[in-house]
Amino acid sequence: MLFYDCSTAPNPRRARMFIAEKGLTIETREVSIAKGEQLSDAFRAINPNATVPVMITDEGTTLTENLGIAAYLDARFPEPPLMGRTPDERGRVLMWHSIAEHKGGLPIAETLRNTHPAFTDRALPGVENHAQIPELAQRGTKRIAHFFDLLETRLTDSPYLAGDEFTLADITAFVFVDFARVIKTRIPQENSATVAWYEKIGARPSAQL
Amino acid sequence: MLFYDCSTAPNPRRARMFIAEKGLTIETREVSIAKGEQLSDAFRAINPNATVPVMITDEGTTLTENLGIAAYLDARFPEPPLMGRTPDERGRVLMWHSIAEHKGGLPIAETLRNTHPAFTDRALPGVENHAQIPELAQRGTKRIAHFFDLLETRLTDSPYLAGDEFTLADITAFVFVDFARVIKTRIPQENSATVAWYEKIGARPSAQL
Repeated sequence: MLFYDCSTAPNPRRARMFIAEKGLTIETREVSIAKGEQLSDAFRAINPNATVPVMITDEGTTLTENLGIAAYLDARFPEPPLMGRTPDERGRVLMWHSIAEHKGGLPIAETLRNTHPAFTDRALPGVENHAQIPELAQRGTKRIAHFFDLLETRLTDSPYLAGDEFTLADITAFVFVDFARVIKTRIPQENSATVAWYEKIGARPSAQL
Repeated sequence: MLFYDCSTAPNPRRARMFIAEKGLTIETREVSIAKGEQLSDAFRAINPNATVPVMITDEGTTLTENLGIAAYLDARFPEPPLMGRTPDERGRVLMWHSIAEHKGGLPIAETLRNTHPAFTDRALPGVENHAQIPELAQRGTKRIAHFFDLLETRLTDSPYLAGDEFTLADITAFVFVDFARVIKTRIPQENSATVAWYEKIGARPSAQL
């Protein structure tokens, strides 16, 4: 296996945490987004979509999305399970993963990429250029507040998003919540269940990488 | 199990196709989005996010996202497998599912919901109202063209998105491609591999529901 990472970006961090939680050591190559290496001809020969993370499996398949990398690793290295054991757990993990991506990750990314000068004409990742749309940042702020409400409601009832166990859903949500610092957004202080969950995950060795 | 469906919307259709491909018959209740029933107090007591599809599992869990419903059903009813058998297949299925959602489903939905008068102040699904942002429709048109390029490149090499077998990834992409009719967008005629894939899937009994 071969893993293409970028130490500064949230999406590769999700895969990096997943690999660490599985206790795996995988040969890794750094792709510097700061230097634009993801857009180089050399990297686009590996992933034409020009995004990280990427994993090349032992079967030779190029997996370009976090969800695909997680599914591969969880099936190949089942312990500890990070995508649930029972059908009900598996459903809950991917439900909360999906909620975290759509209601957390997307508005946080939209808020950053549609306002920050570093992303002028780069409002979306990938090979195409897209102009910034400042209204998306305003909408993003409102959506992120709603996401924090969702997290607090769930984590008041459950130690982790999918239930009693730490899973992929927590990795997804944790990395986005942590990344929201770049848009100067933190968990509301009164959301004590979410703050406790965030600190608990932040103390895991996988979160230090 | 209990399934909350809506016969006119693309996201419930994805779950409906998945259920049919598993050969299952599940007690189903229709939620009329045309009548705004998803926003009713009665339905929000079931899903506070006010979205369909929803599945209540036999364990009593409420699953509110397509990915969660699929993961539950695929683990509980493994045959025929719709999310891959081997680790490599499982990775490819969720990679292509993810690509179809982010690069196909999102821009198609954005183009519709940010232009059509039926979605004034309803530019996103869910409990919150959001104003339309017309620039998203312009961006959507460009992104959808790119999505069709991706599909054609892949389907020129592979009979289905994840490989030799029909999977969840095909359901996700097929439903979005079909739904693009509402924004008057069709597969480019010259994309012969995608047209053949679309017709092949459209002939399956699950696509008639």
